[in-house]
Amino acid sequence: MDLFDKVKTYSRAKDILRNSVFPFHPTIEENNGPLVKMDGKTVVMAGSSDYHGFSQNNRVKEAAIQALSKYGIGNNGSRLHNGTLDLHLELEEKLAKFLGKEAVITFNTGYQTNQGAIVPLIGKNDVIFSDRDNHNSIVQAALISRGTFLNKDQIIRYRHNDMNHLDQCLKKAPDDHGKLIVSDGVFSMSGTVVDLPNMVESARKTNAKIMLDDAHGIGVIGNNGAGTASYYGLDNEVDIIVGTLSKGFGSFGGFIAGSKELIHYLTYTSSAYIFSASLPSANVAAAMTALDILLEEPERIDKIQALTQTLRDGLRSLGYNVPDGVVPIIPIILGDDMQVFKTWGELMEHGVYTNVAVSPAVPEGQQMIRIRLMSTHEEEHIDQILNAFSNIKNQVLVY
Amino acid sequence: MDLFDKVKTYSRAKDILRNSVFPFHPTIEENNGPLVKMDGKTVVMAGSSDYHGFSQNNRVKEAAIQALSKYGIGNNGSRLHNGTLDLHLELEEKLAKFLGKEAVITFNTGYQTNQGAIVPLIGKNDVIFSDRDNHNSIVQAALISRGTFLNKDQIIRYRHNDMNHLDQCLKKAPDDHGKLIVSDGVFSMSGTVVDLPNMVESARKTNAKIMLDDAHGIGVIGNNGAGTASYYGLDNEVDIIVGTLSKGFGSFGGFIAGSKELIHYLTYTSSAYIFSASLPSANVAAAMTALDILLEEPERIDKIQALTQTLRDGLRSLGYNVPDGVVPIIPIILGDDMQVFKTWGELMEHGVYTNVAVSPAVPEGQQMIRIRLMSTHEEEHIDQILNAFSNIKNQVLVY
Repeated sequence: MDLFDKVKTYSRAKDILRNSVFPFHPTIEENNGPLVKMDGKTVVMAGSSDYHGFSQNNRVKEAAIQALSKYGIGNNGSRLHNGTLDLHLELEEKLAKFLGKEAVITFNTGYQTNQGAIVPLIGKNDVIFSDRDNHNSIVQAALISRGTFLNKDQIIRYRHNDMNHLDQCLKKAPDDHGKLIVSDGVFSMSGTVVDLPNMVESARKTNAKIMLDDAHGIGVIGNNGAGTASYYGLDNEVDIIVGTLSKGFGSFGGFIAGSKELIHYLTYTSSAYIFSASLPSANVAAAMTALDILLEEPERIDKIQALTQTLRDGLRSLGYNVPDGVVPIIPIILGDDMQVFKTWGELMEHGVYTNVAVSPAVPEGQQMIRIRLMSTHEEEHIDQILNAFSNIKNQVLVY
Repeated sequence: MDLFDKVKTYSRAKDILRNSVFPFHPTIEENNGPLVKMDGKTVVMAGSSDYHGFSQNNRVKEAAIQALSKYGIGNNGSRLHNGTLDLHLELEEKLAKFLGKEAVITFNTGYQTNQGAIVPLIGKNDVIFSDRDNHNSIVQAALISRGTFLNKDQIIRYRHNDMNHLDQCLKKAPDDHGKLIVSDGVFSMSGTVVDLPNMVESARKTNAKIMLDDAHGIGVIGNNGAGTASYYGLDNEVDIIVGTLSKGFGSFGGFIAGSKELIHYLTYTSSAYIFSASLPSANVAAAMTALDILLEEPERIDKIQALTQTLRDGLRSLGYNVPDGVVPIIPIILGDDMQVFKTWGELMEHGVYTNVAVSPAVPEGQQMIRIRLMSTHEEEHIDQILNAFSNIKNQVLVY
């Protein structure tokens, strides 16, 4: 038995390449926000999580250039040692104020942030209650805890956004176990917002803490874009808010917001924070400027909501299966991997880049083309997207 | 039982703060390479992993500015979907050539890279043989595998750099188990280089694969800085090389080098790669330019070696306990947490920033002040460091 047998026999990517259009790893050569040059062709970008186009915003870019000119490219050390810049502290203070929390700690990626929050909080007898559709980074983080204690009951996965099921699971857990409920705030594939009011009710009855990964909520819903907790007016009921700097803020990195006590604890116990060279100044400065702009220009959120509604309505008029939603994520359900790949290819032919979401990233039957809009899109881009879907509809809808 | 009881009762940082000098989270306000302004005071930076000062190099900075001006701050999507730039592919090709491997895949942080390599390669019955002093990110990665399969025998930790012990452990594992040996190439605390020749011998006898995390080897040892495998002339014997962009290249991010087949496999199976927005263009361009400079100016490696030898000899003449070594990491063993904190404070008073390494990051008795040099240091900085150690020696050596 050779460890690399699985490497030698792996064929899925080659199978897709041989049998279908290949939607992975297209190469971006130029990026002009709503339009990108990809594999030699200029297309409408309808699959980016840069919800306000801040990654291409001139003021944001200028802030990044000034920061890296002053502080350098990387910080070459952990935040704990030689990796803390005054800029990190400034961003953390602004984010805390924005989210109405006492304190914030920044991390290097959203992926790493979920590990940074979950692992130090989970002891031998604590239990993680995790939505079955949670982001993969939450799943991986919970596995570290389970691997540490070899306790198979450490992770309870409840049915997606099913608060009756969560409630039953919570009630079954013994009183002497610490309990952490973890959920995406907005689920990245479907755009579904977590049923927070019922979650809060169950949590309070059973003394469970609530952690939301609000990567896709912050910047687009809630008061000034403060995210899912704010959207429901339940800001004080969420104990741990995890966010990212790479979506609503167009930069790179992640963060945790919570009480001063919690953030102090994580600062000195979180491996994902301690054992990683700190976030570069350019990304910190960019995120900070993006937040400033978001607060100065709240109309960006109205615009992205309006564009999303227009596109959603248009796609439905054409006969596509598009669920309801309140965030700029529009799933177009096709229900089959190969249909998704072919549709993706036809949309690219018609000058529109979208995301594919196939099994196992989404459940069987929910395979989809996923569109994500930006507040830098204009009506003309929405028209281009609708035209592309209109032109291919006779092929797609009869698959 | 409340999940946050551990948060409420956590007191270690406060205890240090009350009883001693507090060496954590000093804030950098200006960074001029060998000199930084930290908490209001300009000090010699003798604790950065920016081994060639590339984070502050003007040509590197210019490349980063050009890249972010063209491509934007973040890429706002996974490499698999809308996050691959032509720049990523260019860097990967250059790194592969530099390391003499067929292919390279970049990751967002070194921390994430070890997960990216280990998790997809470890199946239910495979075994990870891990050096007891390996970097924490390797430990966390192995725990994900163990948490997945709930197999307590999945991780075998062999005695630090003890190839006889590794050999015994390997021989005990059944033939039908895939075997992965994982070790730091250069151990970050002590600067010890792994005993690769004997590791290779044991691995070949038992059909085990070798993975080296060469974060602290690449850029400073081996042919043109190609790292630990090259240092021993065993380039073809290491199956998986993990590296970082934040140390020898002064940027941010990580990478895996290996066969084309391996890298193809990881590209489509590695959660740490797939579920994380891709590395920003500025960091990619900076790393690429740093590599160009390293290859154009190999004298940088000679210089850093010479400076390190001068400082090591000087510290020994003063009576400090400084082990041998071949990398620009100089451990000054003090053997006690409080001694380390006090010494760190006195060095800061004398204008020199160093790293502290206390328990449990290093074994009891090995607590140390750690110095790391850069090829941008000059003789005058070495003199300043030696003067500081000379001035405090009567206090430190009688602790």
